[in-house]
Amino acid sequence: MFRGGVLEQPVIAYECWGTLNAARDNAIAIFTGLSPSAHAASSPEDPRPGWWESMIGDGRPLDTSRFFVVCINSLGSPYGSSGPACEDPATGQPYGITFPEIAVEDIAAAGRAALRSLGIERLAAVVGPSLGGMVVLAYCAQFPGEVENLVSISGAAHATPFAIALRSLQREMVRGDPSWRGGNYQPGRGPRLGMRLARKLGTITYRSPKEWDQRFGRRRVPEIAGLSGDFRPRFEVESYLEHQALRFADAFDANAYLYLSRAMDQFDLVDHGGGSLADAFARFGVRRSLVLGVETDMLFPIAQQQEIADHLRAAGGRVEFHAFSSLQGHDAFLTDLMRFEPAIGGFVKGIEGRAPTAG
Amino acid sequence: MFRGGVLEQPVIAYECWGTLNAARDNAIAIFTGLSPSAHAASSPEDPRPGWWESMIGDGRPLDTSRFFVVCINSLGSPYGSSGPACEDPATGQPYGITFPEIAVEDIAAAGRAALRSLGIERLAAVVGPSLGGMVVLAYCAQFPGEVENLVSISGAAHATPFAIALRSLQREMVRGDPSWRGGNYQPGRGPRLGMRLARKLGTITYRSPKEWDQRFGRRRVPEIAGLSGDFRPRFEVESYLEHQALRFADAFDANAYLYLSRAMDQFDLVDHGGGSLADAFARFGVRRSLVLGVETDMLFPIAQQQEIADHLRAAGGRVEFHAFSSLQGHDAFLTDLMRFEPAIGGFVKGIEGRAPTAG
Repeated sequence: MFRGGVLEQPVIAYECWGTLNAARDNAIAIFTGLSPSAHAASSPEDPRPGWWESMIGDGRPLDTSRFFVVCINSLGSPYGSSGPACEDPATGQPYGITFPEIAVEDIAAAGRAALRSLGIERLAAVVGPSLGGMVVLAYCAQFPGEVENLVSISGAAHATPFAIALRSLQREMVRGDPSWRGGNYQPGRGPRLGMRLARKLGTITYRSPKEWDQRFGRRRVPEIAGLSGDFRPRFEVESYLEHQALRFADAFDANAYLYLSRAMDQFDLVDHGGGSLADAFARFGVRRSLVLGVETDMLFPIAQQQEIADHLRAAGGRVEFHAFSSLQGHDAFLTDLMRFEPAIGGFVKGIEGRAPTAG
Repeated sequence: MFRGGVLEQPVIAYECWGTLNAARDNAIAIFTGLSPSAHAASSPEDPRPGWWESMIGDGRPLDTSRFFVVCINSLGSPYGSSGPACEDPATGQPYGITFPEIAVEDIAAAGRAALRSLGIERLAAVVGPSLGGMVVLAYCAQFPGEVENLVSISGAAHATPFAIALRSLQREMVRGDPSWRGGNYQPGRGPRLGMRLARKLGTITYRSPKEWDQRFGRRRVPEIAGLSGDFRPRFEVESYLEHQALRFADAFDANAYLYLSRAMDQFDLVDHGGGSLADAFARFGVRRSLVLGVETDMLFPIAQQQEIADHLRAAGGRVEFHAFSSLQGHDAFLTDLMRFEPAIGGFVKGIEGRAPTAG
C-alpha cells in the first residue's frame, strides 16, 4: 500500500458496458466519488438505473457503440471491493480499523489491476468526478503514458484546509458515536447517528447556498406541537437533510467512510513531482484533457479546477476547461446534466477513431 | 414571550462604560453574537480584556468621553442573564428545556427592560453584530422611534436555508450526545462532545476558506504514530479547531446554545411588517444607519447586508454601507479591526452633539 501495510488478495468490483475491441484500446475507465458504487448505469445483469444513467450508453456521452466503459468501485468502498467491512482471512473477523491505510494512489493502482485483469493496458480515457477526480490524477502520475485522454470533474490536486476541516469533523462525528466502538462494531450495527450527522454536513457542502435559497427558502414543514423543548425540524431544508442522511447511513459502512474520507485529505499530487506540482503533471503524458468545474463548489473550488487545467496545459497537452455556473455546487455533475453531458460527449467524440468493436 | 410562555422575574446581565448624561440621551446599547458575554471591554470592576476591547473607551470608536455604552447579555445566555441553566423557582431545579422558547424579539425586549431600569428611554445608537444584528432589527421594529442611530454588523433580516441547515445540524450534534439526556443534564455535566462538534462546525463557518489557505495551508502537526486505525489530527487546521472547540464546550451551557441557535433560525423581520419586509423597516424611525458586512461571510452573506441597507434607505433614513473584503468571514468584526474601527468610529462621531455627561 502507498502509505505502508500489505493487503492480501484484494478484490475490486467493477461494472462494464459496451465491447472491448480486438486491439483492446477502446476502454474508458470511470473512478467514482466517495459514496457511489460501480453501478453507474443499468445493464442486462442489473437493470436498476445507475448514478450516471444518462451519461453511459449507445449514442450517449460515454458512447458504448465506440467504447468499452468500465466503472471501478474504489478500494475500501463497501460495494464489493475489499475494505474494512470485509472479513480478514487471518482472523475470520471484519478488518475494521486493522485494514491498512488507504491512499488515493491505492484506489488508482487497484483499479489498474482490475483493468489489467481484463487485458487492458492502455486507456482511451479516464473519467473521474470528486474523489474520482483525485484518483485520475494519481493514476496518470503513477502510470505515465498509459492514459490518452483525461476527464477531470470537480477534482483536486490536493484538498484545501477548509475541505480538510469539514471532513475531519465528519470523521469525528462518526468516531464520537458510542456505537462506533473504536471501529469494532458488528457489520450492520455501526454508528448510525454519527453517519447521519456526517452525511448531513456532507449534503450541506455538496450543494450551494444559492440553490437552497431557490429550492427551500424559508418554507416550513407542517406545524408540529411547537413546545419549547421540541427541537424537531421546522423548516423543509431540515427534512431534506434528514432524508438524505438516512439513505446514506443505512447503506454505507462507517469504517469505509472514515478510510476514504481520510484518503482525500492526505492526497497531494505534489508527492509525485518531488515537491513540484508542475513536475508531477509533467509525468502524465496525456494527449488531451477536459477539465470541468463549478463556480458554486465550496469543497473542490473552481480555483482548484483552474489550477489543474493550467498545469495540464503547461505540461504540453491540449486542454479544454469549463467553469460552469451551475447552482448545485459540488454535486452538479450528478444533476446539472444539461451542462455536463454536452461537454463530456463532445470531448469523447473527439477521441481519434478506434477499430470497430470486436462484437 | 414572543412565541408563547411566561418567564417570571427575568434577570438581564449587562456591563457599562462612560457616564449617562443628565438628559439620559447619550446611551449606546450593544447586543452581542451568540457566544460572548456582556464583558465587551475591561473596567475597574473587571480588568480582564473584553471581546471588543479596542472598540470601547475614551477616544475609541464607541467613545466613552461622549457616550454611555451598555453591553447587554442576551436573554438565555449563560453569562448572567436568565436562561435554561438557571434554577426554576417553581421546582428548585434548572429550567433545562422547560424554559420558554426564546425569540430574537425577546432578547431585544429584555435588553430594553434593562435599559429602562437605568432610566434610558431612547437610545443614541444600538450596535449589533451577528445574532446582535438580528436583535437590533427586532428592537427597532418592536420599539419604533426609540433608536436614533443604528449599526448593523453582519446581521440579517432572516436566516438563509444554508444557515438554518448548519445550525440545525449543530443542534442535532448536541442533542445526539447521550450526555444531553433530553436536556436534563446536571449543570457542568452536559454534552461536552456534542458541544465540541457543534463549535467546530461553527468555527468552520465563522471564518473563510481563503483565510485558511493563507493561515494553515496543508501544514501538518508533528508526525504521530500514523497507524492505520489512528484518526487523530494530522493537519494544523484540525488542531486549531480542537483548541477553539474545547474553550467553548467548557464555557457555554448546552441548552442555552440550543435556545439561542434556534432563535436565529426562527427570526424573520417580515413578521413585523404584516408579511412585508419593506413595511417592517418602515416602522423603525431611525435617522441614520451604518450597515457593515463582509464579502467572505457565508453565514450572513453580503447580499443580506445589501438587503438591510437597501430597505433602510427606502425607509427614508441616511444609510452608510460598507462591504468589506476581509478574509476572516463572519468573524471579521472581531479580528479585522483595521476596517471596522474607522467605520464605526466615524459613524459615531457623526451623531449630533449631546449634552456633556453629568460626571
